Amino acid sequence: MEFPSKLIETAVAELSKLPGIGRKTALRLALHLLKAETETTSSLAEALAKMRFDIAYCQTCHNIADSAECSICANPLRDHGMVCVVSDIRDVIAIENTGQYKGTYHVLGGVISPIEGIGPADLHIDSLLERVGAPESEMREVILAISPTMEGDTTAFYLSRKLRDQPNLHVSTIARGIPVGGELEYADEITLGRSIVERQRQAW
Amino acid sequence: MEFPSKLIETAVAELSKLPGIGRKTALRLALHLLKAETETTSSLAEALAKMRFDIAYCQTCHNIADSAECSICANPLRDHGMVCVVSDIRDVIAIENTGQYKGTYHVLGGVISPIEGIGPADLHIDSLLERVGAPESEMREVILAISPTMEGDTTAFYLSRKLRDQPNLHVSTIARGIPVGGELEYADEITLGRSIVERQRQAW
Repeated sequence: MEFPSKLIETAVAELSKLPGIGRKTALRLALHLLKAETETTSSLAEALAKMRFDIAYCQTCHNIADSAECSICANPLRDHGMVCVVSDIRDVIAIENTGQYKGTYHVLGGVISPIEGIGPADLHIDSLLERVGAPESEMREVILAISPTMEGDTTAFYLSRKLRDQPNLHVSTIARGIPVGGELEYADEITLGRSIVERQRQAW
Repeated sequence: MEFPSKLIETAVAELSKLPGIGRKTALRLALHLLKAETETTSSLAEALAKMRFDIAYCQTCHNIADSAECSICANPLRDHGMVCVVSDIRDVIAIENTGQYKGTYHVLGGVISPIEGIGPADLHIDSLLERVGAPESEMREVILAISPTMEGDTTAFYLSRKLRDQPNLHVSTIARGIPVGGELEYADEITLGRSIVERQRQAW
């Protein structure tokens, strides 16, 4: 695709580096910005640059934050005796949006993946073990909320091995089974099998 | 959706103002930028701001340009006796990509739409008439390449009325019919009807 302007060509090239945005979508976005007020573009460009350069990561849980401690770790109303281990910041946001969890988090920053060359040392695992094993730690439960893929299960297995020596620490994992609203006949055999083996007591 | 950082919240809010980008996609893009090198974000922000503030529009055809004349109008190898009238810059790029047209363009900047309050005076119609009617004009043909929607057809009708008094000027419109590779049985009745009435001579 050729463009009549170098400026738009550069903008399209930069936009189409974003995931899920091809050259056609990038062009639509660029032309939208050209039609809109100049402030739309300047505030977008400014917000992106500010986010990238000013963002901080929580020293405790590695979640994104505006300062050295994230709003969840800094909140005294959260249960600091529970930590939910997730691979990504997106998972924190997803779990927060359920409104069902009141503990703290620990963001690993990925999962163990030998194929991609990501080992335990590349993840925030040491800081989790420190956090849980510190003498002043009041941690009662670690919830492993890692996606049940091959890499995710490997990571969860590694973590549970590392954590099992901790006294008085309960290690749990998020429930696997048929999604709410899902149809039994379309569930894969492994999920359906596990959902029968690990059946839950009827709550009502 | 709540975010643990104001910076990311602002970035997501700005990104989700773009067409076709909701809050979930915006968050994915923001987190992608956070993971990538800082240069990715700075060059994206810079390219967008530069495009928006430095862009020029061709004084002749209102296409986007890097200077006062676009690369098509400035090209002596193009046929300056033909002008293809389109509603949008995107249409110029689409027609250019076919590689089938060697004339010039005229970008109207929209179509006549009484519902949206867009009248002929809001479009670049006067400059088209000036361009075609100028004493030194060597224009032989005007091709109306406007989408065959209600507003587009209204605009094309208005233009052909305005242009019919010009001596020695041929006004044509892009061919309408069954798309190449399209199935007859799925074509709508109006398109199929027109494609029979305005049947073309077999070229081979």
